[in-house]
Amino acid sequence: MNLLASPLVTDLYQLTMLHAYFAHGVGETAVFELFVRKLPRERNFMLAAGLEQALGFLEHLHFAPEELEWVEKSGKFPRGFAEHLAQLRFTGDVHAVPEGTVFFPDEPILRVTAPMPEAQLVESRLINLVHFETLVATKAARGVIVAPGKLLVDFGLRRAHGAEAGILAARAAYIAGYAGTATVAAGSRMGIPVFGTMAHSFVEAHDDEAAAFRHFAEACPQNVVLLIDTYDTEAAARKVVALAPLLASRGIRVKGVRLDSGDLAALSHSVRRILDEGALAEATIFASGNLDEYRMRDLVAGGAPIDGFGVGTSLVTSSDAPYLDAVYKLQEYAGKARRKRSTGKATWPGRKQVCRHYDGAGRFAHDVVSVEGDEQGGEPLLVPVMRKGRRLGAPESLAAIRERSAGQLAKLPERLRALESAASPYRVEIAPALRKLANQVDRAEGEVPALFR
Amino acid sequence: MNLLASPLVTDLYQLTMLHAYFAHGVGETAVFELFVRKLPRERNFMLAAGLEQALGFLEHLHFAPEELEWVEKSGKFPRGFAEHLAQLRFTGDVHAVPEGTVFFPDEPILRVTAPMPEAQLVESRLINLVHFETLVATKAARGVIVAPGKLLVDFGLRRAHGAEAGILAARAAYIAGYAGTATVAAGSRMGIPVFGTMAHSFVEAHDDEAAAFRHFAEACPQNVVLLIDTYDTEAAARKVVALAPLLASRGIRVKGVRLDSGDLAALSHSVRRILDEGALAEATIFASGNLDEYRMRDLVAGGAPIDGFGVGTSLVTSSDAPYLDAVYKLQEYAGKARRKRSTGKATWPGRKQVCRHYDGAGRFAHDVVSVEGDEQGGEPLLVPVMRKGRRLGAPESLAAIRERSAGQLAKLPERLRALESAASPYRVEIAPALRKLANQVDRAEGEVPALFR
Repeated sequence: MNLLASPLVTDLYQLTMLHAYFAHGVGETAVFELFVRKLPRERNFMLAAGLEQALGFLEHLHFAPEELEWVEKSGKFPRGFAEHLAQLRFTGDVHAVPEGTVFFPDEPILRVTAPMPEAQLVESRLINLVHFETLVATKAARGVIVAPGKLLVDFGLRRAHGAEAGILAARAAYIAGYAGTATVAAGSRMGIPVFGTMAHSFVEAHDDEAAAFRHFAEACPQNVVLLIDTYDTEAAARKVVALAPLLASRGIRVKGVRLDSGDLAALSHSVRRILDEGALAEATIFASGNLDEYRMRDLVAGGAPIDGFGVGTSLVTSSDAPYLDAVYKLQEYAGKARRKRSTGKATWPGRKQVCRHYDGAGRFAHDVVSVEGDEQGGEPLLVPVMRKGRRLGAPESLAAIRERSAGQLAKLPERLRALESAASPYRVEIAPALRKLANQVDRAEGEVPALFR
Repeated sequence: MNLLASPLVTDLYQLTMLHAYFAHGVGETAVFELFVRKLPRERNFMLAAGLEQALGFLEHLHFAPEELEWVEKSGKFPRGFAEHLAQLRFTGDVHAVPEGTVFFPDEPILRVTAPMPEAQLVESRLINLVHFETLVATKAARGVIVAPGKLLVDFGLRRAHGAEAGILAARAAYIAGYAGTATVAAGSRMGIPVFGTMAHSFVEAHDDEAAAFRHFAEACPQNVVLLIDTYDTEAAARKVVALAPLLASRGIRVKGVRLDSGDLAALSHSVRRILDEGALAEATIFASGNLDEYRMRDLVAGGAPIDGFGVGTSLVTSSDAPYLDAVYKLQEYAGKARRKRSTGKATWPGRKQVCRHYDGAGRFAHDVVSVEGDEQGGEPLLVPVMRKGRRLGAPESLAAIRERSAGQLAKLPERLRALESAASPYRVEIAPALRKLANQVDRAEGEVPALFR
């Protein structure tokens, strides 16, 4: 029973409602859309990710025997409900914005069209997957923008929120333009490039720092990146220089050093000098330790001679904005558009499409959200990706998604590429046809006879 | 190949160092301790959680055939390394602070004593598990403190960082005193009480709100908690009142209503009045929607007639402090105490014990951190929990852990129970014996001959 594929990764009310839907024959086609209501203050755009995992979840959706047994024994449902669940598969259609696409609030990035019970049950896990990867891809994209040409590596597993968060964060960061991750399982399961050096404990386990460096270089000759801040960074850099000729005589090249603490700007300069004067001009300097996109920007702007950054906690927890206001809302049921009108949480009804318009320089100018079929020019962002429970085509390669992301980030208006909140946010227009539909829905709900009373 | 138990849920450098340890015979006993370096500004204490998952991971540690195959084919390691890994099990000892114990910075909550390769490999996942559950248990405890007597339920799955985060957050919140969770898998896998009501989509799927209520009540007669904010909250409350006699005639009791938006303080009063006047005085009011401990405190302090709260995103992401400065550091190797001296990141060396002292009222007065064996009174917090890779005794029941948590929160000094940062933090003393050891380690490292040169 694999937790990550389990339909019990859902909220109890989904099952309760499923039972009520079965009991009352509420089984017509429902349309739900997943979107983000508003941007965190610290963000100017979002980068879509997580679709691949969402589709995998839908495609394999079924209740395993132990799960059905739990449902039966829980005492929460009448007899017979488990039999309904045993038959349940996802048979619906999905439209989505491809991974690696920049998007904005109120723009649906995933639309599920399926019999009500199926569409309802999957809500919790679909948001869970798409929300998290989008959150991290968005955070990662900010780092990619401020540190062009630098080798960026995800170091966040230990403070990620669980193992799945660790590998999904690695994937999301890679999509956004990171070079790879330190998380081995993201390499073994997803083919993401894996990077690694050494830890302080390796140095401390030796009585002598230079001996630790030599042991490491001899054992791992293809990847000699030495961690030099355990005791005294500059002294350690000199030890590396002293050791290099011995290693070179055995055919081992010192590829680089890593700084993990202290004043990274100052240390990178002094270490660079020590390496250059010690005939290690080709050895790179890699920095880590409480980094985020703000610190990277400042280090890059200050001209610190750092070739790459390892970014951990801030990336995988998206620490300055650890969630998005992502929701999955019913927009149509049994052919009729619907909307929620709760205070402060009203939604736009119906099946929607987002069309993007570009300026003369090929950058994003503005988007228009309208009802499907009303597109008035521009590039439609939502495309069909699943029909009757089966994907349309093979999963996109990570390479293709990375390429899309890079293209998208290059087309962002300059003001949105800043780390700080843009004075004028990106323009997302609601088309007249959509406003009209919303008014119609509101009027109809006021008038509707109480059919079921 | 279960991701959650996989030894590849680790950083690449752990494997690289393992290889170097094997190659150079660095296999003597290492002692690592897991602790938090400092509190987030928004926290006055932490509540330990995650030990159960950490011990489960250690007890079952092994490389599956597909994992060994990946290691062999990755091209990152010399031939023969996978054979070493195939033999690897965790054979060490673990000491830990029991789950549900309050603790403070610089206090080890987990100590691993094992051959170096084993102790090193598990670093990433041990931090990953203990950090996250401790993070959420700590956040949850703050809510428990400010909302005594209220039914608190975790609603966070959809914005948790993955499925594992969802169920571990449910467990951590339950440990801290929450009544349960909406996450079904946390119920089916861990026996945590599961709660649920209905969603807006259920109401919207009906043409008429009252019909939706009736359908729900008829299908789920044991748990009639109706969501009344889809359109107009007070109007919906009146519909509930109107419907109640019909339901009562069929033996169905309206257990309560849920508010999910709007001015919860004002609405809870008006809805309470409507229910009371409508002969539904026993129906409870449950509130949700962007809640956290600050909003709960204000609602409780303002006398809002709310019986329970559903808390989601803020809880499971610990949104105001989405990580702790948790680390796992080598403190002893081959019988010699060690420490890291990196700028701003120096650690206290050696195997340590934490002793807690109480004031006359039975509340926590201060803690003393010293070297193991130097305890000078007080209650020692670290106890042995695993020997030679096997647990000492059965896993603690969640009930026992919850009871401990409740006792611990009751013994917190009043100033630390406030949501805001306490003017004077809790006192954690470093014993003279530990300071002396740190000095000895520093001197010895300055003097040590370069044994390996």
